[in-house]
This record gives sequence, C-alpha cells and structure tokens, in this order.
Amino acid sequence: QLDSNRALLRSCAPRASPRPVKNSPPSSRRSNRPPRPPRRDPMLSGDQGLPDGIGMARLAWSRLPTADGAAPLPEGPAASAPAQDELFVGAVESLDYEVIENYAYREEQAQRSKFWVPYYIMLKWFFALLIGVGTGLAAIFINLAVENFSGWKFTLTFAIIQHSYFVGFLVYILLNLALVFSSVYIVTQFAPAAAGSGIPEIKGYLNGVDTHGILLFRTLVGKIFGSIGSVGGGLALGKEGPLVHTGACIASLLGQGGSAKYHLNSRWVQIFESDRDRRDLVTCGCAAGVAAAFRAPVGGVLFALEEVTSWWRSHLMWRVFFTSAVVAVVVRSAMNWCDSGKCGHFGAGGFIIWDISGGQEDYSYQELLPVAIIGVIGGLLGALFNQLTLYITKWRRTYLHKKGKRVQIFEACLISLITSTVSFVLPLLRKCSPCPELETNSGIQCPHPPGTDGNFVNFYCSKDNEYNDLATIFFNSQDDAIRNLFSAKTFHEYSAQSLITFLVMFYSLAVVTFGTAVPAGQFVPGIMIGSTYGRLVGMSVVKFYKKLNVDEGTYALLGAASFLGGSMRMTVSLCVIMVEITNNLQLLPLIMLVLLISKAVGDFFNEGLYEEQARLKGIPLLDSRPKQVMRNMNAKDACKNQKVVCLPRVSRVVDIVSVLQSNKHNGFPIVERGQNGESLVIGLILRR
Amino acid sequence: QLDSNRALLRSCAPRASPRPVKNSPPSSRRSNRPPRPPRRDPMLSGDQGLPDGIGMARLAWSRLPTADGAAPLPEGPAASAPAQDELFVGAVESLDYEVIENYAYREEQAQRSKFWVPYYIMLKWFFALLIGVGTGLAAIFINLAVENFSGWKFTLTFAIIQHSYFVGFLVYILLNLALVFSSVYIVTQFAPAAAGSGIPEIKGYLNGVDTHGILLFRTLVGKIFGSIGSVGGGLALGKEGPLVHTGACIASLLGQGGSAKYHLNSRWVQIFESDRDRRDLVTCGCAAGVAAAFRAPVGGVLFALEEVTSWWRSHLMWRVFFTSAVVAVVVRSAMNWCDSGKCGHFGAGGFIIWDISGGQEDYSYQELLPVAIIGVIGGLLGALFNQLTLYITKWRRTYLHKKGKRVQIFEACLISLITSTVSFVLPLLRKCSPCPELETNSGIQCPHPPGTDGNFVNFYCSKDNEYNDLATIFFNSQDDAIRNLFSAKTFHEYSAQSLITFLVMFYSLAVVTFGTAVPAGQFVPGIMIGSTYGRLVGMSVVKFYKKLNVDEGTYALLGAASFLGGSMRMTVSLCVIMVEITNNLQLLPLIMLVLLISKAVGDFFNEGLYEEQARLKGIPLLDSRPKQVMRNMNAKDACKNQKVVCLPRVSRVVDIVSVLQSNKHNGFPIVERGQNGESLVIGLILRR
Repeated sequence: QLDSNRALLRSCAPRASPRPVKNSPPSSRRSNRPPRPPRRDPMLSGDQGLPDGIGMARLAWSRLPTADGAAPLPEGPAASAPAQDELFVGAVESLDYEVIENYAYREEQAQRSKFWVPYYIMLKWFFALLIGVGTGLAAIFINLAVENFSGWKFTLTFAIIQHSYFVGFLVYILLNLALVFSSVYIVTQFAPAAAGSGIPEIKGYLNGVDTHGILLFRTLVGKIFGSIGSVGGGLALGKEGPLVHTGACIASLLGQGGSAKYHLNSRWVQIFESDRDRRDLVTCGCAAGVAAAFRAPVGGVLFALEEVTSWWRSHLMWRVFFTSAVVAVVVRSAMNWCDSGKCGHFGAGGFIIWDISGGQEDYSYQELLPVAIIGVIGGLLGALFNQLTLYITKWRRTYLHKKGKRVQIFEACLISLITSTVSFVLPLLRKCSPCPELETNSGIQCPHPPGTDGNFVNFYCSKDNEYNDLATIFFNSQDDAIRNLFSAKTFHEYSAQSLITFLVMFYSLAVVTFGTAVPAGQFVPGIMIGSTYGRLVGMSVVKFYKKLNVDEGTYALLGAASFLGGSMRMTVSLCVIMVEITNNLQLLPLIMLVLLISKAVGDFFNEGLYEEQARLKGIPLLDSRPKQVMRNMNAKDACKNQKVVCLPRVSRVVDIVSVLQSNKHNGFPIVERGQNGESLVIGLILRR
Repeated sequence: QLDSNRALLRSCAPRASPRPVKNSPPSSRRSNRPPRPPRRDPMLSGDQGLPDGIGMARLAWSRLPTADGAAPLPEGPAASAPAQDELFVGAVESLDYEVIENYAYREEQAQRSKFWVPYYIMLKWFFALLIGVGTGLAAIFINLAVENFSGWKFTLTFAIIQHSYFVGFLVYILLNLALVFSSVYIVTQFAPAAAGSGIPEIKGYLNGVDTHGILLFRTLVGKIFGSIGSVGGGLALGKEGPLVHTGACIASLLGQGGSAKYHLNSRWVQIFESDRDRRDLVTCGCAAGVAAAFRAPVGGVLFALEEVTSWWRSHLMWRVFFTSAVVAVVVRSAMNWCDSGKCGHFGAGGFIIWDISGGQEDYSYQELLPVAIIGVIGGLLGALFNQLTLYITKWRRTYLHKKGKRVQIFEACLISLITSTVSFVLPLLRKCSPCPELETNSGIQCPHPPGTDGNFVNFYCSKDNEYNDLATIFFNSQDDAIRNLFSAKTFHEYSAQSLITFLVMFYSLAVVTFGTAVPAGQFVPGIMIGSTYGRLVGMSVVKFYKKLNVDEGTYALLGAASFLGGSMRMTVSLCVIMVEITNNLQLLPLIMLVLLISKAVGDFFNEGLYEEQARLKGIPLLDSRPKQVMRNMNAKDACKNQKVVCLPRVSRVVDIVSVLQSNKHNGFPIVERGQNGESLVIGLILRR
C-alpha cells in the first residue's frame, strides 16, 4: 500500500532539484514557468556513451543519497543567504524502496557469483556491528564532553561564589555563552542540517522521503560537536534526539562506504547501493542512537520500530536487536573504564539511568486517581507544547531566519543569556530552607558539599544547615536535576512554590529554545517538565493519603512519562525506555496507564511532536493505511491541476528527452491503448 | 508485497472445500478429477434473487471465518474417522485482507451515516477492552484450576507417603491419569482443533491463511478445560501457548458477535465483517494471551508484533498495548483478591514471575565465556528439539493418528503413566543429601515442611535434616520447579548427577509429549530444560571462578532464555518476557547475548519451532519479502502444471457459472487483449 501511495506521489509531484528551490507558495510552483536549461544527465551525456546493461541497471536501482558534493550550500551567488527553512521545504525527494525488476536487474542478478549472497549477508552484519560500535563511541564521547564541561563550569562557579556572587554570575553566563556560541557557529556555518533533533527528518527518510543534507558527514560532525556545546551550555534541550540522528548518519555513511567529498569512501563496500539497503542500515542506526542515549537497548529497538520506521521485517528486527546489544556492550565497557576515575567529572553522575530503586515498591487502588490526573496534565501540557513550538517555528521561519545566519547566531546567544540569567537569579531570590532531619544511613547529606552531585544544594544560604530547593533543580546540570527530582525518601525537599516557578520558567525556556539553530533533543526537557508537575502531584498525594506508602519521586517519574507521552505520543517504546532508564519494573502498569491517558488526551488536540514538525518541514509522511478521506479520492484529486505527463509504451529517444526537459516530474506513467480505445496504465517509469 | 504474493497464491491454488480433503499427495490433487456437483451458491440461488448493490458488496468484502455450522465434523458418514491431520493439511483457505474497492463497496461507504466512523472506532476500543478482560479472566481461571489441582494432588500424595510410598505412588499416578484423560477426551471428542499450542495456526491466520476450526467457540472451551487437565496432570508441557490461542479465540468470537452455532451471536456488533478487522482483533487477542500467561504486558505486545503478525500498523500497536494493559490490571486485581487466601492453593506459588532479585547484581567479563557456551548449548538443543518433534509429529501422523481417536486417547494416557512413573520413581532411587548450613535470615528452610512450596524437598529421606535434590525439581509442579532452579543463594543444592538425569529425562518426555492430542505449550518445558543445563554451567562457573560473585540461579535463567531462543527463535519479545517474568533488568545485556548466540546457532540447522510446525500442518507462511530464489521465478513456475483459468473483461453469467463449476480455484485473473494482440492482466476476481 505504502509503496503504491509513494509511487502516486512521485508521479505527480515535481522533482526537487538538487539545489533547493526558493520557498514559494504552491500556486507559483504550479504555474507554467519556462523550462529550465536541462541538466546534463549522465544517461545521455556523450562521455559515457549509452551504458551497457549492467551500467543501466546500476543507474536504475542504485543511487547514493543526496551526495556530499551535489549542492555545496555555501558556494554560488544564489546561496549567499540560504535560510535554513529552504533546506527543508521543497527540497525533499522520494526514495525508491521498490526493487525495479527490469531486464537489466535480472541480468545483474544472474551475473552475481555464488559468493555474493553470503558476502552481502556477512557485510550487513558487520555493518550492524560497526554501527553499534560507532554510535556507542559517539555517545560516550558526547557524554564525556558534556559532563566534563558542565562539571568544570559548576565547580568553577561554585568556587567563585564563595567570594563574590556577582563575579560568579558573570563567569557562569560567559561560559554558557561561549559553549552555545560554539554550537550555533558550527551548525550555521558548517552543517545547517544538524540543527534541531533530526528525528522528523529521519522519520521522513525511513518513510521514503530524502531531506537534503540530512545524512552527510558534516552533518554528523556538526551534530556531535554542536550538541556538546548546546547541552554543555545549559540550554533547555537534550542530547538524546541528536544521538538518534548521529546513529543514523553513521549508518548511512557506512552504507555509502564513506564520504565522497572528504575522500573517505572505498568502493569495495559500496554494494549497499539500493535505497532499501540503506534504509535498513539507517533503521539500525536509529535504534543504536536510542540505545546509546538512554542505555536502553530494548527501548532502542522499539523506538526504531514504533516511531521511525514505516517498513519492517522480522529479519531486520533481529539485526536491529544485535546493533542495540553491541551498543550496550560498548557503553558498559566505557562505563567500567570510567569507574576507575579516569574520566574527570564523568562519574556516578554521568549517563542517564536515574535509579529509583529506593522508592515505592507497590501502589494501591486509591493512587489510580492522582495517576490519572498526571496523565491528563501530561496530555494537556504536551499538546500545548506541540502547538506552541509549531507557532514559534512558523513565526521564526517567516520573520527571523530569513535574515541570515547572523540573526540565528544572535538568537541562540540571546536565549543562552536569558537561560543563564534565569537559572542563576531566580534561585538567588528564593529563601533558603532549613535542612530536614535525615536518617543517618541514608547516604544523603544536607547541604551536600559543593562540587559534588546530589540533593540539597547550598546556594546563597546564610546558615550552614540550610539549602536552596530551587537551586537544587535549576542551578544544576539537567541530568542531576532529574536525578534530584526522581530521588526517593526526600519528602518535603521541594516547596510547591519552587516547583511551580521552575515549571513555568523551564516550560517557557524549552518552548523558546526549540527551533534555534543548535542540535536539540526534546526528551530531557520533557522529562524535566514532567517530573516537576509529577512531583507536585506527588506532594499533594503524600499530604492527602497520609497512611499510604507513597513516594514523591515515583510521581515525578510518572509525570515525566506522561509529558513525553502527551508530546511525542509514543507508547510501547516510551514505556520500555522509562522502565530501562529508571531500572524499575514495578511501576510498569502505572507507566502504561499514564501513557495511555496522556496520549489519548494529546491526540484530541493535535498530532505528535515529530509529525507536526515533519509536516512543517514539508516532509510528506505517509501512513501505512490510507486515511478514510482518501478512500473516495481519485489520483486526479490528488494531483489537482498538476498535469501528469504520460509516455507511450514505445517511444523515441528524442521524445523522451524533450519530455524530460519540459518538466521536473520524477515519474511518468506508461499508458497503452486497449482494444476498445480505452487507456490502460501498464507501469511507471522513473526520470532516471 | 505480501498482499500480491497472497493473491498469486490464491489464483492458482485450488480452493479448499469446507469439508477437509483427504490428505492425498499433491500429484493426485492436480489430476483432472470429474467436477464435483456444484455447491448451491447463495449469489445464484433463486430464493434470494440477484442481490442489490449493498448485498453484493457485503458478499464481496465480508465473510465470517469458517463458520461453526459449516462443517460439523462428527456428523455424516465420511467423518466417521476424521484423523486429526486431515484437519490441518489441505483445509487451509486464504483470507482476504485487501479491501476490494469495487462499485458496491463505494456505494456502501457513501451510505454510511456520519456516526458510523466514531461508532466503529469506539467499538474497536471497546472490543480491545473486552478481549483484555476476557483473556485475563480465562488466564486466572486456568491458573486457579491448575494450581489447585496440582496443590491437592501433591498435598494428598505427600500425606499418603508418610505411611506408604506405594499407595502414594498409585494415588499420584491415578490422579494424573484422570486429569490427562479428561483433557484428551475433551479435545478428541469435542474440539480437535484445540490440540497443540495453537500458535502456528494463529500465526498462519494472521499471515492470511485460515485453518479450519481454529477460532471456534468449542475450540476455546476445549482449550481452556483441556489445558487445565493436561497441565494439572503433570505432563511435560505448559499452559502459555494455549493461552495465546485462547486469547485469539476470544477475540475472534467477539469480532463475529458471538458463536452462530450456540445462539450467542448478536447482529448489532457484526460490523467487523472484513477479514482485516478480525485480523486486528486476533492480534490483540494474541498479545493479551501472552500478557496474561506471563504477566508480561510489554512482552505480549512484542510477541504479537515479532512472532505472529505479518501486518502491522502503529495504530494497531497502540490498541494492542491498551489490551495488554487491561490484562495486567485484571490479573493484578485477581492476584490482590487471592492474597487474602480465598483461592486455595493459588497463593505465593501461583502465576509465573520467578523473582530472582536476591541473585547476582553484576557480572564480569570473564563470565562472558560461560554465557556464550550456554548460548551455543541452547542453540544446539533447541534445534535438536525442533528436529525431533518434527520427526515424531510426522511419524505420529503417518502411523498413529490415522487409527482414530481411541489411539490418541490411549497414547496420551500412556505418556501420562510414563511421566508420573518417571517423576516418582527416579527421585526414589536418588540418595538424599544432608542439608547445607543456611543463613538463618534467608527465609529458606531445609527440608521445607511438606505441603508448602520451596526448595529442599524431603522425599524418601531417612533423616530429618536431609533433602532429595531430584525430587525438588522432578516431583513438583513445573512452576515451583522453575522457581527452585532459578533460586538464588542456594549453592550446591543440586548435584550435577541429578541435574543431568533430570535434563535427559525431561527433554525426552517433552519431545514425546509434543504432538499428543492435548493443549500443549512449549514455553514452560523449554524454561525447565534450559534452566537445568544453565544451572549445570553455573555450577561449574562457581567452581572455576571462585572469587567472582556468581549465582547459579542467574545461569539457570540464562539457560532458559537460550533454549527458548534456540527453539522458538524469537529475540526482542523473548528478551522482554524473560525480563518481565524474572522482574530483573540487570541481566538484560546477558540475556540479549545468549539469545543472539542461540538463535544464530539454531538458524544454522533448521527453522523455528512454529515455522516448522506450520509447514508440517500445511500452512503456507509467506515472508514479508520474497526469498532470493523467488526473484527469478515467474508466476508460471509457481503454478507448475496447475492451469490458471482466466476470464475476459466482459463475460456472460452462464460462462461464469460454468467456469466456477468446472474448477475449485479461488481467484480468476481478468485478461484483456492489448492493441498489439498481447494479453494484459487487468485484475483478479475472487470466486465469491
């Protein structure tokens, strides 16, 4: 079904040119413009002559994705102001996942030696291994860098504020600014496709639509270094979405046999020439990304399955599973290596896994009501988040990013300044609370010594046994903040006032930050937001159901699940990821419940975050089944006044060349006259 | 791809008649037999007249599955000896998952009121709820019954053997025999399709092939009561596979709006008339079955996804997830209710979940070698299991089951006698071991008091502080035996000799029991076998790596995973199920590793258990992608000398009737002559 839908799309949609078309309203694109001078088609160019059978077959079913050198963005006069949105709107091209079973293909198949199939299968598994290792290493590198940058930053700031809060504030702001500037500079100057999370584009790729530049080597580099800067710089965004994109880039580059532009490719591995094979590799890469980002191997498989892929086979599932397992091994080895203290600030605090094992083991039926309330709040806030980010992205594209890269850099730096100021000044304004009486063997100190991770941060407090609850979550790296919010047995650590302040401010920051030209994931901000209101609900539950064994940290976890469910609308994969990152299976039924409720509530208002963003970026995602409204549509309705150009069964080369030059369509139906004079479509021939 | 493959299959395969064809070799089926007298087709019968548009549309795209009353097996002279194999070979019929978009269909669509779609969606969700509740209740019922029967049996036997071991032996054998006889009697007399696990047939159904009688009401009843008898009777089989089938039956019956034969149907819910809708319901049912069988809701979703379905959409995933969540809630409520002791012997010992939380928390790299060895053993033993059961099933079908139901009943009773004797007598021959010194606060008693669950069973021991290690696993219900094998901190409880004896005997029993005419799952026997050799490996690891913190129970768990992986060849779903039933996430990477190895080793030898069995039963499972060898095949090669019957575009009714009467094909290509006199296939019309 999908394949044929995609074919329909191809036959009446204009082919996107390699250089992105200026984002013009659809009506002007449909007008009869004079034909552009023909591109020199390799099939027709004289230096190659008419290719032989094998060459033709190769041309027909193999194609490298939008190649590195095809459209060097920063060159040429027309590209002087390549606003980022132009990259996304109109520059999509549909991939060919169907095997084109023509004569040349069969000839090629027949000429393959008997070792070809074993070699091909072996190579697939070898590549799955490489993807796992590569993504695992990338994840470790990013985590190491982020944890160390954050660690140095906070250690330095804490050291300085012992003497002067004002100097500390300046240092904190400047460090953040430098990190964010490095990130936005890399992205805007070097790898514009590395901005954002990349998941909508990957989703589009696996659905059959290639976005320009999304899987290039420089996008990979930009993504890795960009996300170190943006996450280390304390913006309200995460590094998990970018890691998924990183995994996909690694997979695609391996499939191409390296990067053509940077002379890294080798021809002997270039047997993954069809879009189909590369799609499988990219699927593995996505799973590896999630597995590495969350240390959740099963969650990675499920994420690839539920959220990104449109095509799925059980053989592929096994290979994806293998890739995830490799990632798990690589990451674990690195963690073991770091345990000996060789990794600087990357220690117990590093890498997700917010253990809540000390928390609540069981739940009673009375708790289902607050849990349902969390689900509803998650659905509402998640849907609101999707809607607000949609508006802001639209606004940004229409007014702001048209003005060039400098505006983008300025914007990111401004947001960094605001974020730093808010996260420093708001805790200052908050009155410190006296330390509660803690069990001596609980391992929790109040206030904890500066320069270590933990609850009960002493920030601008006058007495020794006081702590600042807002600073504990706000003036901290996000991983540590989440750990503090999830922490069990720390009743009444946070005041409702602090949590509400944080919720409002962080929600606003997350909305504003979304869509700046830096690599940005939405998982961790989502978990932050969700766990804050979850903890709020938990506090009231503790208050109202006094006799029950309730833990506030548990509710924070459920809140996190509900917000992600309400925004991203995943179910099974999110459920498994939440279980894997908290290392707790007891709460699985409750997590399922909040996810079901929050997704249902969210679906009432709008689509999921990735679908909304993909739509905004002009990526036409196709469902596996046609929508109800499509049932009564004809192909005619879909094409509107776009004219379909047909070819007869037997055609002269001159005619074909003239047809190819007169339009930009990618597919041409072949039409034959029947006995009764009726037209019969007997196939579709692609441009190339 | 699958749809079109299936269509090809349909067009040249003879249509299976509702009454099963005698299992004849393919050559005789292809011979030109005289045409059978025509069945009275409702479309052509005079009492209805030519149906109107809507009626025709209904006939075209809706069809109840092989209906209850269509082929009442025990009636008629020809059915006097309906050997079981006849039910499976040749009696398959392909389902129509494609929407047939003809004129009548569009007319029907246009006439639907605007409330139709909301009503339809609401009903789908309501049915998902009902499937969850129904399957959950069925699982609880089966578990309650099995645990109570087993409990009474063992309590009574233990009470008697205090006085006389011989009388105890007789009582034990007779109780088992009675339970097994009830099971085999129900199945052979009442519900022949309830034999076996049912998973191959369900897999076939979801792949597009309907096996006769697989989703009937009496199959459901036979499955529930049959598996109580067979599992309670102590045979080497499990109740998990049958529960999956039970869930599928419940789903299908709901989709039909009840059972036509037993006057339970109601017309107002019969809007799920297409095979497509029923397929979705059955998918939910499968997931519910696994979720209920293992108390593993996420595992259920993944099992439905990985193992049984061929078609999958993310919307369906969400509904399946909901169904699983409902099952989890229902089962949990029942467990809570039982906690107060109202459920007899169904207490702490009831229902899967073999908690290994007391075991090993971490693992070192040196342990990877023994873990890999477990994976290889699992692959080898699993593949051997598949091969042996294949041979035995073939032999049984050729020689044994032809002789009628009495032979089947006799066979099952004989196997019950052998199983009872072996499980009673072998422990008697084993010398008792002295109790080890246990930590006082470990909660483990040695020997544990008779009539309770736990390790260290006192069976035919002369002294008070002795226990019989073979009886601990052999003379016990399988759930308890697994719990004992998985148990942590019970070093040196089992001697290698006992474990090897048990492994050989139980493996043989499981092979022999497979294929008898009782409902039989392979999960629990697989876990038993796997955990036995896993524990053996664990014992040697404890011996060789003395300094490491190794637990034998952990290795038992890995062994269980490896055997299931080697036999059933599942990966992700099995992984999640193992994690969910042991309530432990720490070992996930190791479980992934053994699964990968055991599946790879097993795949080297043969196909997975369900695929092998489906092939044996004549269910043609289609892969989602054509095999390499199919690439160069034409439809001609697939049809061999089977003649394709075509119809022209415009045809007289008389001609069509004559074509329909002259053969049993299910699909007829419509062929049109092109301008150049060539034939063009323009579609496929189905028999009905």
